[in-house]
Amino acid sequence: MHIAIIGAAGMIGRKLGQALAAAGQLGGRPIERFTLADVLAPAAPPGAEAASTLLAADLSAPGQAERLVAQRPDVIFHLAAIVSGEAEDDFEKGYRINLDGTRLLFEAIRAESGRSGYRPRVVFTSSIAVYGAPLPMPIPDDFLHTPLTSYGTQKAICELLLSDYSRRGFFDGIGIRLPTICVRPGKPNKAASGFFSSIVREPLIGQEAVLPVPEDVRHWHASPRSAVGFLLHAATLDLARVGPRRNLSMPGVSATVGEQIQALRRHAGEQAVRLIRREPDPRITEIVRSWAPGFAATRARELGFVAEQDFDEIIRVHVQDELGGSL
Amino acid sequence: MHIAIIGAAGMIGRKLGQALAAAGQLGGRPIERFTLADVLAPAAPPGAEAASTLLAADLSAPGQAERLVAQRPDVIFHLAAIVSGEAEDDFEKGYRINLDGTRLLFEAIRAESGRSGYRPRVVFTSSIAVYGAPLPMPIPDDFLHTPLTSYGTQKAICELLLSDYSRRGFFDGIGIRLPTICVRPGKPNKAASGFFSSIVREPLIGQEAVLPVPEDVRHWHASPRSAVGFLLHAATLDLARVGPRRNLSMPGVSATVGEQIQALRRHAGEQAVRLIRREPDPRITEIVRSWAPGFAATRARELGFVAEQDFDEIIRVHVQDELGGSL
Repeated sequence: MHIAIIGAAGMIGRKLGQALAAAGQLGGRPIERFTLADVLAPAAPPGAEAASTLLAADLSAPGQAERLVAQRPDVIFHLAAIVSGEAEDDFEKGYRINLDGTRLLFEAIRAESGRSGYRPRVVFTSSIAVYGAPLPMPIPDDFLHTPLTSYGTQKAICELLLSDYSRRGFFDGIGIRLPTICVRPGKPNKAASGFFSSIVREPLIGQEAVLPVPEDVRHWHASPRSAVGFLLHAATLDLARVGPRRNLSMPGVSATVGEQIQALRRHAGEQAVRLIRREPDPRITEIVRSWAPGFAATRARELGFVAEQDFDEIIRVHVQDELGGSL
Repeated sequence: MHIAIIGAAGMIGRKLGQALAAAGQLGGRPIERFTLADVLAPAAPPGAEAASTLLAADLSAPGQAERLVAQRPDVIFHLAAIVSGEAEDDFEKGYRINLDGTRLLFEAIRAESGRSGYRPRVVFTSSIAVYGAPLPMPIPDDFLHTPLTSYGTQKAICELLLSDYSRRGFFDGIGIRLPTICVRPGKPNKAASGFFSSIVREPLIGQEAVLPVPEDVRHWHASPRSAVGFLLHAATLDLARVGPRRNLSMPGVSATVGEQIQALRRHAGEQAVRLIRREPDPRITEIVRSWAPGFAATRARELGFVAEQDFDEIIRVHVQDELGGSL
């Protein structure tokens, strides 16, 4: 089996490559080969160096998608995107990378499909940014897409393309709307969503974190481990069960910031909670309040996608996967 | 005021041009100029010949959208599209005309907006084909887009683009999802939806019509007069009242084929109804059953969009507008 990961250098892409390399198989079929692409050539997952082709590729540049598709991977994970803030700051770049890049990939597959009957599984990571306030809680599976960012618009458009290309038989696609990934490993960043991870990640290692929003802000979370699990499940799921509505909101944990802090207290005590410094930021608060508070995720759960049960479990997963299992 | 109509040679485009030329104003502002574009140069509306620039333009061809936008119309009605059946038969043409053509228009406006602060009203005709079965009855305003055709996919994508370009301030856009237009004047055609008009239009003038579906098929209708009314209202509506969700399902009449036939009987008697010949076509029945049965259209009605109250009124409008007022 030949697996391609586009966006292989990102946090989820790296974890996905590592999980696949460690398993050595997907859906019971041995993996013989990886094609790993990103704007800068990514690293091969440990143990899969010999089996990996590493590509520096920008899908929106002419010929790049064709070059990848010509290798006829059996499964293509398409995780590449520029993030919400950058797509909002640079309108043209956002549409070029997030919309045109994806469309060129889909078109390259369609062309190969017309030549040779090629029909790969395509797993596309969409985003809960396809939804914008006012929103019900929980958001049902059949709720309208109402993006309030160019990033969310681009993801919603790619979802529609994925469904149509799948319906026409050019590939067998599935789109998964990831929750905000929490606890995100690594350094604090400038993303408006950064504090959701920061207020847990930093105090757990004795460092200060900044909280820019009130404790009643509610949002939708899943761990990096769950995100990889969603992708692996999407790659092997029988899509006949999914039908023509090919994009699914993934399960997750709906928690207020206050509930996040209570879970932190249960794990690491009051001295950890005291490291959270409140610095109200009305701009970030307004942005974050327009985001999705939580999803029913009925179809995804019925189809076997699984996330954490509560925010305590999200912290436990972070401690296990990033902090060696204990504080 | 300068009005542009793209798709001005189509049935709705012609009626819209005639209505505007007859009124001589829009929203209380006198119309000085028309730019009328279509793939083949359209005719000027009666009385507006001197004020009309007629363009043969394919928006998906390089430079065509720029040429139109350089004239800086105050209102742009974008009605141009290839129809559902053709977009399904010719995948590339459908995406080129219905998606790329619209995007190039939006991009040309964005470029002019960046140069000069130009910010026209853009009225875009979307379609109830953005919805596909299974569907609730009536479909609420916040129901997910689930197109089951490439045409519906293209319209749903253009809706998302229109919202994002409006949100970013490049133009002031509104998208209106037209019901199936009934009674459509003219000759019978090959469209899967053709019989909805045919079973009324032909018997009213003593001709036979073919009914390919059972009488319990339910669908969503409005007259050509209502369609023109929607467009005029959309062109002058205060869009601050509409907010970021810029695409609206228009009001209409939800009727079964049986209810259409009852209304025909009330207007033209049993001898007209006897002209409907039943020729069941399982393929057309399957297609039509996947279409929208009806809409709540709550927001559109609150915003002042008005359609017929029942199918009897739709027939009366047809008799008034197309048959000189009496049978």
